[in-house]
Amino acid sequence: MMEVDIPRNDLNSEIIIRTNDKTVSSVIQQESIAQGERLTLSRVSYFDINGYKRCWEGATRIARRDGNRVDSVTVLAFYKRLLYHDCIILVKKFRPALKTYTIEMVSGLVQENEGAGETALRELYEHTNLFGAVKTIGTPLSTDPNFSNCMTRFVTVNVDGDNPMNRNPKQSEDPFKETIIIPVSELRARLIEFAADNYIVDSRLEVFAIGSVMGNVSRKSNKLVPTCVLK
Amino acid sequence: MMEVDIPRNDLNSEIIIRTNDKTVSSVIQQESIAQGERLTLSRVSYFDINGYKRCWEGATRIARRDGNRVDSVTVLAFYKRLLYHDCIILVKKFRPALKTYTIEMVSGLVQENEGAGETALRELYEHTNLFGAVKTIGTPLSTDPNFSNCMTRFVTVNVDGDNPMNRNPKQSEDPFKETIIIPVSELRARLIEFAADNYIVDSRLEVFAIGSVMGNVSRKSNKLVPTCVLK
Repeated sequence: MMEVDIPRNDLNSEIIIRTNDKTVSSVIQQESIAQGERLTLSRVSYFDINGYKRCWEGATRIARRDGNRVDSVTVLAFYKRLLYHDCIILVKKFRPALKTYTIEMVSGLVQENEGAGETALRELYEHTNLFGAVKTIGTPLSTDPNFSNCMTRFVTVNVDGDNPMNRNPKQSEDPFKETIIIPVSELRARLIEFAADNYIVDSRLEVFAIGSVMGNVSRKSNKLVPTCVLK
Repeated sequence: MMEVDIPRNDLNSEIIIRTNDKTVSSVIQQESIAQGERLTLSRVSYFDINGYKRCWEGATRIARRDGNRVDSVTVLAFYKRLLYHDCIILVKKFRPALKTYTIEMVSGLVQENEGAGETALRELYEHTNLFGAVKTIGTPLSTDPNFSNCMTRFVTVNVDGDNPMNRNPKQSEDPFKETIIIPVSELRARLIEFAADNYIVDSRLEVFAIGSVMGNVSRKSNKLVPTCVLK
């Protein structure tokens, strides 16, 4: 492995990569090309592992709060009723970025002094009029790592459909924030229909549906396999 | 529903929303705040369904080819060997946007005159040294619809692990593009370990793992339920 001598005068003291491994890539400098109200268009120069200087251009969020690596939560919300199939709760949204309607899980930005679970329940209620209970809160995840520094967490929420206060989800007369409730077993088929109707399905929702159809089907034998076949 | 009278002089002729429904939201104007080499920082004003004028700020890609709505492919690649568990093929990547390493599915931008399947096999080979066969090509999906107009497709690819030419995936002495191969049944547990080791897992990978653990577990009874319980 080539060891890279980073010129000291290129170093931006704001950018510190915590590493005790000389073979990892490292950021040299980050500059702002332009700044809007919420985003910065950024250029980052860095050394890759082979010692080549590379340049990345992307967008970064301005309003990230100190000590909080996560901008948003994504709500994996399930509508449960006794003797009924478990359903997943989705929303139809107008997305200016794409200039059309999308089918997505509920999501939203974490507000000041708000925990991820609180954000999830608030956004779920704002989008759907449903009251949920937080089941699990996931780790920080990248949303589009080639493009931005945005990060989210999945929060799994159960909604008790037998509770009278959850009998009134937002109805379709308000298509701006329409609530869609679909049995998990039919999700994949319904997403194909939405795509055929020119809605844009979010990639996280699509791959959840693919995963749920595939399941843990990898157990072919009782033979023990190592955790990592190749590493 | 309030009908919105959009002032003609605000209309940007480049922005056309194909719709025959007066109740949907529509874009009024898109302006570029700043332009880099690959991205534009954009401000979009639009009317929401209630007739309120709103403003969205985000990033859009410059280099999108005509007639192609999709920038990238995301490769759901499976390593299959006779009598072994099916494995999923992942990569460890340095992401300047996040200034650290991520665990992701293989992905990459679609190049000129390239089909989604071709991109998937090229990117898989470049990242992992493995030769795959395309199984399915998915529909265009949003990657971060609150933030950008980026779109991707999932391409499912099988890699024949019994074929001698697939015995040599990229090894860990090149951590810049390290190949990671994990039994699908262990994916969720391994992602938790990666997160504990301070890697950032991509949200698509995480939610695929959640889906594959949950499976289609919604069939509680033989009772028929409507496709959409509430709509």
